[in-house]
Amino acid sequence: MRLALALAARGLGNVWPNPAVGCVLVREGRIVGRGWTQPGGRPHAERRALDQAGAEARGATAYVTLEPCSHHGKTPPCAEGLIGAEVARVVSAMTDPDPRVAGRGHAMLRAAGITVDEGLLEPEARALQAGFLSRIERGRPWIAVKLATSLDGRIALGNGESQWITSAEARARVHALRARFDAVLVGGGTARADDPLLTVRGFQPARAPVRVVASARLDLPRGRLAGSLDQAPLWLVHGPNAPREARDFWMNIGAELIEVAEEKGALQPRALVEGLAAKGLTRVFCEGGGQFAASLMRAGLVDEFIGFTAGVALGGDGRPALGPLGLERLAQAPRYRLSETQVIGGDVLHRWRRD
Amino acid sequence: MRLALALAARGLGNVWPNPAVGCVLVREGRIVGRGWTQPGGRPHAERRALDQAGAEARGATAYVTLEPCSHHGKTPPCAEGLIGAEVARVVSAMTDPDPRVAGRGHAMLRAAGITVDEGLLEPEARALQAGFLSRIERGRPWIAVKLATSLDGRIALGNGESQWITSAEARARVHALRARFDAVLVGGGTARADDPLLTVRGFQPARAPVRVVASARLDLPRGRLAGSLDQAPLWLVHGPNAPREARDFWMNIGAELIEVAEEKGALQPRALVEGLAAKGLTRVFCEGGGQFAASLMRAGLVDEFIGFTAGVALGGDGRPALGPLGLERLAQAPRYRLSETQVIGGDVLHRWRRD
Ligand SMILES: NC(=O)c1ccc[n+]([C@@H]2O[C@H](COP(=O)([O-])OP(=O)(O)OC[C@H]3O[C@@H](n4cnc5c(N)ncnc54)[C@H](OP(=O)(O)O)[C@@H]3O)[C@@H](O)[C@H]2O)c1
Ligand SMILES: NC(=O)c1ccc[n+]([C@@H]2O[C@H](COP(=O)([O-])OP(=O)(O)OC[C@H]3O[C@@H](n4cnc5c(N)ncnc54)[C@H](OP(=O)(O)O)[C@@H]3O)[C@@H](O)[C@H]2O)c1
Repeated sequence: MRLALALAARGLGNVWPNPAVGCVLVREGRIVGRGWTQPGGRPHAERRALDQAGAEARGATAYVTLEPCSHHGKTPPCAEGLIGAEVARVVSAMTDPDPRVAGRGHAMLRAAGITVDEGLLEPEARALQAGFLSRIERGRPWIAVKLATSLDGRIALGNGESQWITSAEARARVHALRARFDAVLVGGGTARADDPLLTVRGFQPARAPVRVVASARLDLPRGRLAGSLDQAPLWLVHGPNAPREARDFWMNIGAELIEVAEEKGALQPRALVEGLAAKGLTRVFCEGGGQFAASLMRAGLVDEFIGFTAGVALGGDGRPALGPLGLERLAQAPRYRLSETQVIGGDVLHRWRRD
Repeated sequence: MRLALALAARGLGNVWPNPAVGCVLVREGRIVGRGWTQPGGRPHAERRALDQAGAEARGATAYVTLEPCSHHGKTPPCAEGLIGAEVARVVSAMTDPDPRVAGRGHAMLRAAGITVDEGLLEPEARALQAGFLSRIERGRPWIAVKLATSLDGRIALGNGESQWITSAEARARVHALRARFDAVLVGGGTARADDPLLTVRGFQPARAPVRVVASARLDLPRGRLAGSLDQAPLWLVHGPNAPREARDFWMNIGAELIEVAEEKGALQPRALVEGLAAKGLTRVFCEGGGQFAASLMRAGLVDEFIGFTAGVALGGDGRPALGPLGLERLAQAPRYRLSETQVIGGDVLHRWRRD
C-alpha cells in the first residue's frame, strides 16, 4: 500500500476532477502490475495495473489507495475490471466518498466473491487524496498558500522590490509545486502589480495547471497574462458587476469566466472556492498576494501553508506576507501542523497543514 | 580535533572573557586526557587534560582548538604546562589572536622541541570560537538575534498578546540557548512592556548569563527585574544623560551601569556593543525587541539569527519581528547563511550566520 500511495502521488495536479489513485497488483509475493491515474484523470490506476499484469492478475491481491469505482463514466468501472481479471483479494485504503461510488465498489467486488479489506493506511491515503476528498466532502478544493519571505516575514521592500528574496533553487521548486496542483490562484492586486504568467517553467508538466485570477471587476492588465492563452488555461473569477467590455475581451481571447457573489465590493471567498470546485478543481495553490490570501484565511479556507524562508532581513518597513486578519485573541489564530521541512538552495522550505 | 571541538563547545556561555577551548591528549592511539575550559574561564582546557592524563601525557599528542596561552595570567601558561608534561606534539586549530599570545604559545612549544602543527579544522574552530575572536579582533561580541515568529513573521497580535506563539519545547530551547551565551540583551521597550526576568529557567546553568538592558535614560520598571539581582547579574547600558536618581537606584540594588554615547536620543549601537566587549562579553543573545534589534541590524552588528517559526498565522495587523531597516535596494539587505535547522515541539528552528 505504501508503494500504491507513492504511485498515486504521481498523479497529483494532473488528474482533476478525478482523484489521484495508485494500484499495485501482487501475486505470490511478486508485483505483477502497477498503475496510477493518468494525466487528465484516465485511464484509472486499476486499469493500468491490470493491463500491465495481463493474465497474471488472476488470483492476485490488488492494493488500491481508494475504493475502485462502480459507475459507468467515460470508462467502465474499475470494480468490473478487477472482477473480470479474477483478482482474489482487494485491499483498499478507504471508501470513495463520491456519491456515485460510496461503498458500491467494495460491494460489487464482494458480491463477485472477492475478499475486500478496507482501511489500510487510511490516514495516509486521506492526506494524499485530500484535494479530491475536499471537493467531494466540502464542496471546495484543498487550498495551499505559498509564503516566500525573508527571516522577518517580508515579501518585498517597502518600495516593492522583491527580486530575489529566495534562491533560484527555491524558485524552481515553486514551479515544481505549481505542477503538483490543479491550479495556481492569485488576487487581482498581484495581477495588476506583476502581470504574471503563472505558468510552469523550467520543465514540461504532464498537464499545465489552470491559472486563476480573482478580480471582482476584471480590472486586469492585458499584457503578458492575456498573451499567454496558448500556454495554459486561464480562468477569471469575477463578480456580478464586472463590465461587459472586460468580460468580452477576456472571453474572446479564450479565458474562461466564472461569476461568483460579491460581499462589500470583493468576491465572497467561499463562493469563489465553491465555484472552482464546481469546475472540478481539487488542489489549488494560492500564490498571494497578501490581501487576497488573508481574505481566504479569514474565511477559514486555507488548508496548507508552504513557506520558504530566506536568509535575509528586510525590516518592518518591508511588505508583510499576509494582510490583516483582525484577530482579537491568540486562541482564535488558526494553527497548522508541520508536515515537512527541507533545505533548498540555502533557504528553508516548511509545509504546514490543518488536519 | 573533532572531539576537541565538541569538548570546547561545552564551555560556550560559561567562560567569558576567555575562549571556550577543548583539548584531547592521544598517546599510542588511545585518548589519555580530555579537557575543556571550565566555568568562569579557568582551569584551561589543556590543564584539565594534562591533569587527567598524569604521567601518560609524556610523549602524547595534544589536540587543541586554539593556540595554548603563553602569558602568566591568573594561571600559569598552558604552553609551559604542555612542555612540563613532555608532550611530543601539539596539533592546534588556529593561532590565538589575543595580543598577549599571538603565536608566542606555538613558539614556546617549538623552542622546547615539541612538534607543532597548526590549522587543523581551522574554519570549524573559528566558527566555534567566533565570540572570543570577535571580541579580540573586532572589539565587540558575537551577536545573535532571536526571532520567534508566526508563519507570517509576527511576534504578537496587534494588541500585544503573544503568549504563546511557539511551543513549550521551543521556549525551553530558548532557555538552553541563553545558557550558551554570555549575556541576554534586550532594549528598554521590552523591559518596559514585559519587565522580564531574562534568567535561565528549567535547569541550572553552569554560569548564569549576564542580563543586559539598553535604555538611554534608565526609564525602566522597578519590579521583577529589579527584584531578581540575586538570580543573575544585571547590567544596564545607558547614555550620558541618564538621571542621577535612576543610576543610584539601580546601582544600590547591585546592578552594574555602563555609560555609552548617544546618537539622536538613542544609545549608539556600536558604542554599546564595544562597551560590552570591554567588560569581557564574547557572545550576546539579543531577544529583541524589534526596534532595538533593527538598530543593531542597521549598524551591521548582527552576526547570527536564531529563528523559531510556529504553525500559526497572525496577519499583517500583528506586530512585526523587526523594526524598520530603511533599505532602498534588495542588494543592500544583509544576507545570512543557513547553519542549522531542527524541528522542536512542532516548530521549526533555523539558524543563520554571517561568515
Ligand atoms: N513575493 C511573493 O511571493 C509574492 C506573491 C504574490 C504577490 N506578491 C506581491 O504582492 C503584491 C500584491 O498583493 P496585494 O495584497 O496588493 O494584492 P492581492 O492580494 O494579490 O489582490 C487583492 C485584490 O484581489 C481582488 N480580490 C477579489 N476578491 C477578494 C477578496 N475576497 N479579498 C481580497 N481581495 C480580493 C481585489 O481586486 P479587484 O478589485 O480586482 O477585485 C483586491 O484588490 C504585489 O506587489 C505582488 O508583487 C508577492
Ligand atoms: N515575542 C518575542 O520574541 C519578543 C521578544 C522581545 C520583545 N517582544 C515584545 O516587543 C515589544 C517591545 O519592543 P519594542 O520594539 O517596542 O522595544 P525594544 O526594541 O525592546 O526597545 C526599544 C527601546 O530601547 C531603547 N534603546 C536604546 N538604544 C536604542 C537604539 N540604539 N535603538 C533602538 N532602541 C534603543 C529605547 O528606550 P530608552 O528610551 O529607554 O532608551 C527604545 O525605546 C514588547 O511588546 C515585547 O513584549 C517580543
